[in-house]
Amino acid sequence: MAWEFRTEPEFEKKLDWIRRFREECIEPLDILHPGRAFHPLDGELGPVVRKLKQQVRDQGLWAPHLGPELGGRGFGQLKLALINEILGSSGWAPVVFGTAAPDTGNAEIIARYGTEEQKERYLQPLLEGECFSCFSMTEPQAGADPRMFTTRAVRDGDDWVITGRKFFSSNARTSSFVIVMAVTDPDVDPYKGMSMFLVPSDTPGIRVERHVGLLGESTDEGMHALIHYDGVRVPGDALLGGEGQAFVIAQTRLGGGRVHHAMRVVGQCQKALDMMAERALSRETQGSRLADKQLVQADLAESYAQLTQFRLFVLYTAWQIDEYQDYKRVRKDIAAIKFLTPKVMHDIVYRSMHLHGALGVSNEMPFADMWNGAAVMAVVDGPTEVHKITVAREVLRGREPAPGLWPTQHLPARREWARARLASL
Amino acid sequence: MAWEFRTEPEFEKKLDWIRRFREECIEPLDILHPGRAFHPLDGELGPVVRKLKQQVRDQGLWAPHLGPELGGRGFGQLKLALINEILGSSGWAPVVFGTAAPDTGNAEIIARYGTEEQKERYLQPLLEGECFSCFSMTEPQAGADPRMFTTRAVRDGDDWVITGRKFFSSNARTSSFVIVMAVTDPDVDPYKGMSMFLVPSDTPGIRVERHVGLLGESTDEGMHALIHYDGVRVPGDALLGGEGQAFVIAQTRLGGGRVHHAMRVVGQCQKALDMMAERALSRETQGSRLADKQLVQADLAESYAQLTQFRLFVLYTAWQIDEYQDYKRVRKDIAAIKFLTPKVMHDIVYRSMHLHGALGVSNEMPFADMWNGAAVMAVVDGPTEVHKITVAREVLRGREPAPGLWPTQHLPARREWARARLASL
Amino acid sequence: MAWEFRTEPEFEKKLDWIRRFREECIEPLDILHPGRAFHPLDGELGPVVRKLKQQVRDQGLWAPHLGPELGGRGFGQLKLALINEILGSSGWAPVVFGTAAPDTGNAEIIARYGTEEQKERYLQPLLEGECFSCFSMTEPQAGADPRMFTTRAVRDGDDWVITGRKFFSSNARTSSFVIVMAVTDPDVDPYKGMSMFLVPSDTPGIRVERHVGLLGESTDEGMHALIHYDGVRVPGDALLGGEGQAFVIAQTRLGGGRVHHAMRVVGQCQKALDMMAERALSRETQGSRLADKQLVQADLAESYAQLTQFRLFVLYTAWQIDEYQDYKRVRKDIAAIKFLTPKVMHDIVYRSMHLHGALGVSNEMPFADMWNGAAVMAVVDGPTEVHKITVAREVLRGREPAPGLWPTQHLPARREWARARLASL
Amino acid sequence: MAWEFRTEPEFEKKLDWIRRFREECIEPLDILHPGRAFHPLDGELGPVVRKLKQQVRDQGLWAPHLGPELGGRGFGQLKLALINEILGSSGWAPVVFGTAAPDTGNAEIIARYGTEEQKERYLQPLLEGECFSCFSMTEPQAGADPRMFTTRAVRDGDDWVITGRKFFSSNARTSSFVIVMAVTDPDVDPYKGMSMFLVPSDTPGIRVERHVGLLGESTDEGMHALIHYDGVRVPGDALLGGEGQAFVIAQTRLGGGRVHHAMRVVGQCQKALDMMAERALSRETQGSRLADKQLVQADLAESYAQLTQFRLFVLYTAWQIDEYQDYKRVRKDIAAIKFLTPKVMHDIVYRSMHLHGALGVSNEMPFADMWNGAAVMAVVDGPTEVHKITVAREVLRGREPAPGLWPTQHLPARREWARARLASL
Repeated sequence: MAWEFRTEPEFEKKLDWIRRFREECIEPLDILHPGRAFHPLDGELGPVVRKLKQQVRDQGLWAPHLGPELGGRGFGQLKLALINEILGSSGWAPVVFGTAAPDTGNAEIIARYGTEEQKERYLQPLLEGECFSCFSMTEPQAGADPRMFTTRAVRDGDDWVITGRKFFSSNARTSSFVIVMAVTDPDVDPYKGMSMFLVPSDTPGIRVERHVGLLGESTDEGMHALIHYDGVRVPGDALLGGEGQAFVIAQTRLGGGRVHHAMRVVGQCQKALDMMAERALSRETQGSRLADKQLVQADLAESYAQLTQFRLFVLYTAWQIDEYQDYKRVRKDIAAIKFLTPKVMHDIVYRSMHLHGALGVSNEMPFADMWNGAAVMAVVDGPTEVHKITVAREVLRGREPAPGLWPTQHLPARREWARARLASL
Repeated sequence: MAWEFRTEPEFEKKLDWIRRFREECIEPLDILHPGRAFHPLDGELGPVVRKLKQQVRDQGLWAPHLGPELGGRGFGQLKLALINEILGSSGWAPVVFGTAAPDTGNAEIIARYGTEEQKERYLQPLLEGECFSCFSMTEPQAGADPRMFTTRAVRDGDDWVITGRKFFSSNARTSSFVIVMAVTDPDVDPYKGMSMFLVPSDTPGIRVERHVGLLGESTDEGMHALIHYDGVRVPGDALLGGEGQAFVIAQTRLGGGRVHHAMRVVGQCQKALDMMAERALSRETQGSRLADKQLVQADLAESYAQLTQFRLFVLYTAWQIDEYQDYKRVRKDIAAIKFLTPKVMHDIVYRSMHLHGALGVSNEMPFADMWNGAAVMAVVDGPTEVHKITVAREVLRGREPAPGLWPTQHLPARREWARARLASL
Repeated sequence: MAWEFRTEPEFEKKLDWIRRFREECIEPLDILHPGRAFHPLDGELGPVVRKLKQQVRDQGLWAPHLGPELGGRGFGQLKLALINEILGSSGWAPVVFGTAAPDTGNAEIIARYGTEEQKERYLQPLLEGECFSCFSMTEPQAGADPRMFTTRAVRDGDDWVITGRKFFSSNARTSSFVIVMAVTDPDVDPYKGMSMFLVPSDTPGIRVERHVGLLGESTDEGMHALIHYDGVRVPGDALLGGEGQAFVIAQTRLGGGRVHHAMRVVGQCQKALDMMAERALSRETQGSRLADKQLVQADLAESYAQLTQFRLFVLYTAWQIDEYQDYKRVRKDIAAIKFLTPKVMHDIVYRSMHLHGALGVSNEMPFADMWNGAAVMAVVDGPTEVHKITVAREVLRGREPAPGLWPTQHLPARREWARARLASL
Repeated sequence: MAWEFRTEPEFEKKLDWIRRFREECIEPLDILHPGRAFHPLDGELGPVVRKLKQQVRDQGLWAPHLGPELGGRGFGQLKLALINEILGSSGWAPVVFGTAAPDTGNAEIIARYGTEEQKERYLQPLLEGECFSCFSMTEPQAGADPRMFTTRAVRDGDDWVITGRKFFSSNARTSSFVIVMAVTDPDVDPYKGMSMFLVPSDTPGIRVERHVGLLGESTDEGMHALIHYDGVRVPGDALLGGEGQAFVIAQTRLGGGRVHHAMRVVGQCQKALDMMAERALSRETQGSRLADKQLVQADLAESYAQLTQFRLFVLYTAWQIDEYQDYKRVRKDIAAIKFLTPKVMHDIVYRSMHLHGALGVSNEMPFADMWNGAAVMAVVDGPTEVHKITVAREVLRGREPAPGLWPTQHLPARREWARARLASL
């Protein structure tokens, strides 16, 4: 009924299986093939990964973020949070468990807005993890503000012709199809004048200008494309949802992603904290263990406190999503965990890396990805600043300004009130 | 069974009553008589406060921290947390609800370690809120390290004669009796050589050298005494618990206090956040409301996120105390919320005060006490540093150093392992 | 010629005298009469303070901020900074050295904009430290934005009649006259429609509604008045400068004050650091001195580094003012040290206070004023936020946006350039 | 004579030349060959780099850190700081200007402690920038604490035989010789029982186990070796300085490096701040330029203030080194700028990178190296914590504990003193 902070034992067993499976079966992929998760399974990796996927299916854990109608289990967000904590430190886990972005979000919107034909052609392979997809929205000059998008789709007979440039189109390199957002009516409010299109990646006119990588990736590793849509002609049934619905569809996609990043970061921070603790116990300098030095102890304590609080907030937010099924009601907390995510990750990863000394800042430990990841996390799905503004607006919603010139807690007036009140008691 | 983040409706009703009662009946006392809560109820305040206490009793809310055996309701810590959040911004609430420190802790240890005679003489009036008591432990040269205490109690026939100086003996000014900790056996480990004594405040030889005040109090307001025990003679039955038990008894007292401070600070921060929000909506400058300025929005968002996380952590800690009934198991989290408490309070109070501009740093708003309180909170019940060290030790408890020279996550070795492991898949 | 970081020996001797004089002669006033500096010298204090002022004059140090034309020595800002560092921890020093605000700023503007008659009546007594003055600008609803001021001065024959309310009018309680800013032409840009008036404090219609105090002051100590100008009639020659000049005059006043606060805060922080160091060496706990604990060492090191950097920046800014005699050119650095001032003070005072444990947060140490002062300093002369915006604007002044879509450091284009360039080498 | 904050015009001209030369001639190398600076100049790069070196020599700027006796110009540290600010953002500049670490430090100690023969063989090529050298001190189990080193050199006839493992031996990959530190007398204090040896890199028994890279480098790029000295036999004249002198020699090397890192980081931060400013002016979102948003303005202002203060502190420290020629006297400030360096770099680089949004965390901007560099900088030449402890010790040096139980600023005693003092005035 009220305030419980624990997981039911049956589900704990599932989590144990997932933890063991990650350690024994997925981590080898993470270590040896860190950048290959979103590449086609050619060569020797194919059979291994397919076998692992089957094991996940056998456990009833495939696509744990989806409801039964899409082939998932309908765990809800709270249980998904507990799963994602475990899988969060693995780059391959999303592929093996069928939860890879942007495919998950793409699947969600095709399921919700697609025609039967679109679902058959694009959704089914996605749900089965048999292909990759690309979400192509941001533009080089625009970023977090959709009102500045200029890519156009113009009707030409029954077809649409798409022209413009899109930036940071993730997984363009290996995707089978692209979901691209384009202005279809430049004369109305931008939030109503854009539409989404489903476009096979090999459609003529799609030119990748550069494959952009993230911090720390070499110039040839990039998975995020700058795409030039150079008069790309698609048939009328390439439209996803109705004309002008792009913004509504995009919003559907984004909320979830923010929560899932937070869940996964909890897991990464737990790993960083484990490493920090091990190092503190293992290393001696100036006559004592690191574990016995106050500055190390303070770092450990602050990391533990920061992570524990963040985890509780993520779980609380997940619980609310399940409970209220109302995005607007939880928007404040989703935005809050979104802006906390990069900070928590940054702080804990930094302390752990730093405690490892020269080894920590070498390429012989797994910190480089985490350190870069903390910076990346402050930008994906909208920069920190945008989410702080959202939280502020929600905090203020429904509140009133002071009735007069002075605050309601202004002491001179409060004293008068208190005197009257005390007299009446 | 699993993960619930809500209060049952019946108890919500209790909380509503408490909230209204605080606003309407206790706040007038807070505003008009901020420093009198721990003074005898002489004059006109007496009847008012007694009436309020009776209302609290009528609602079955008297001494909500105590079990039924001591006249309370056995709510447990989680419900107490929810109550203390509401009462936390009030200086008089502890008196009106029978939860005033140090009386609560003193009552607890008399109940647990006192003889029947001691209970009758000292405990009963305390539980009824009819007298004040003083806990006299810290010494001017010692502070947070009991091993440095030097106040001695020497046997003389059936009596004990106590000699030494104690610092920060709270409420000495108005207390009926003092619990004083003194070295009874200087030849053993200090943790085993100190004892507690129950001493009426008017015993000859008790001299208050100075009434020390906290930050912001005038020199004549101090409630924390520097006491000189100048050969204070007490009978043998003044001993509380056995000889050498002082440290064990003191420990019993302290854990709870730390949690209760955290609960109350949640309430103070909610008040500060409410004031910040109201100000942001009320005040305009440079052509727009404060609420519309990014730096204000960031302050609001960070305050909300910090407070929400902290509150969840306090509730989680309270839940664990109820659930496990095992102080050692929860020690880590008690210490963590203890060191977070002053930081959360500092940050949110500062932002709220600062947003009020010149008015905020004037004496016409209630910020002075909160601002000083944030600094005080970092010292009471042990300084921040001590609690960070405790958390670090608990985080490291049961963990192992790396088996060899390199960390277990060292990539060169992990790569070898992964190759073997992948081959076997 | 180039880069020198030292004071010439002759001036060092002056500084030594000032330091000794403060310690021996002014600190007794600070300790015993902390809130009386801005009160008339009645009673026994009168002769003492007059004697001290004379000693300062005898040393040629009276009004060290003024040029010879106003009875000062024309030291310039850098030397003034070195003096103010020493005097900064004293509340009485400004009175004894003739540098008390708001009198200094008021004197400056009367000297610059006043008629001969005004100078004789108001300036002379100010320069001699024989009276106090009040600057009455801010309004309850306005704060840092002069465009929101509503106090009106309306011509009536040869007179002006002033009506409105002013807030935080400092030293109103003891001042001989008030400089009040009022709208004289509501139909033009506010920056051009306000004028300044010199008004004797006993003019009929000036009503002090409340004497507002700062954080930590009792309700009857306030030195900052909420004044109701209730149809205050003044003759035409009460106008200071021309009609509509109020804003220009006010700007003249403010720049200097910001620098002087920074200089004085350097001195306060040095005192706090000295206290922290002494405490670290004096106090033992858990088997070792505080000085030997890493968390204390880190606090000392950070305080030292923060203060050394800040001091250099203040001196550099003072040097620029002397060198360039051009406020606009130094505006960026004046604003920067203004927003650093409260932060540096806050951090160092907090660490020092906290290291003193319970004693530090008691009223037996001089931390209360410093702790409150840090909060006050973030509001006086414009809040931190306003000065950050000024710095940002100045940093950006004269810079150019990138010529195209991508930054000038965008690597793809830079690589092309570099290839061409290397080929040409 | 006193307090000057400017560079003499003639030297400004030199700086202008350096700035232009870096931009036009060195940056192409940085962009196209970022990781090759410490590789032999084979292939097409050879002639280009030799030509650039000659231009530097022609300007009289070769080896600006060295005195004339070693082929430099004896600029001193302050001028070197001004030069290094300009060169700090370039990886190739140290090679082109003859200031590359660890060669500079190695040259310094050979010049100071080497025999004529050693100088001829090893020093001359180093000074001419014709070879690379390696400094081999740290061990895998030791890090910042030399007392834990175990690599042994044992006499065998006239030879020494060196056995052990050294970690993070920089430039081992391309160096002509190694300076290795080994225990020659295990029976005395470690600070007196270690010696330095000059060993050609191709000596039998030197085995590189792994080439370790820094954060962000691929596994085959590493320039920092884990070396196994497997019975490396060297002749008696391989000893550098006397037996047991290793620690004294090593200390000589390190102080300078810390200052030089700080100087160079000033330059990197200036570049990051320039990029941040350009971005703020270039990018628009949500209806206004980034430059007009408060959160961006705050980041700009804080970066400017942080950098300006840090730069002044670095210059002040350099000035002191020149002025006092006494390492001990400046140790406090060298340690302080050392621990500030990574923090300043981290904060400013982060803000600049973050302001560039997705592009900032991509591999198309030069932030990756800077972001990793900030983490590396907190570890090289001793971790932050060690330097904070040094600063604390120096701050406390020569100070006294309070004479009695209470601090000297304890108000009760101060009040008594002040009363007596005032009476005497």
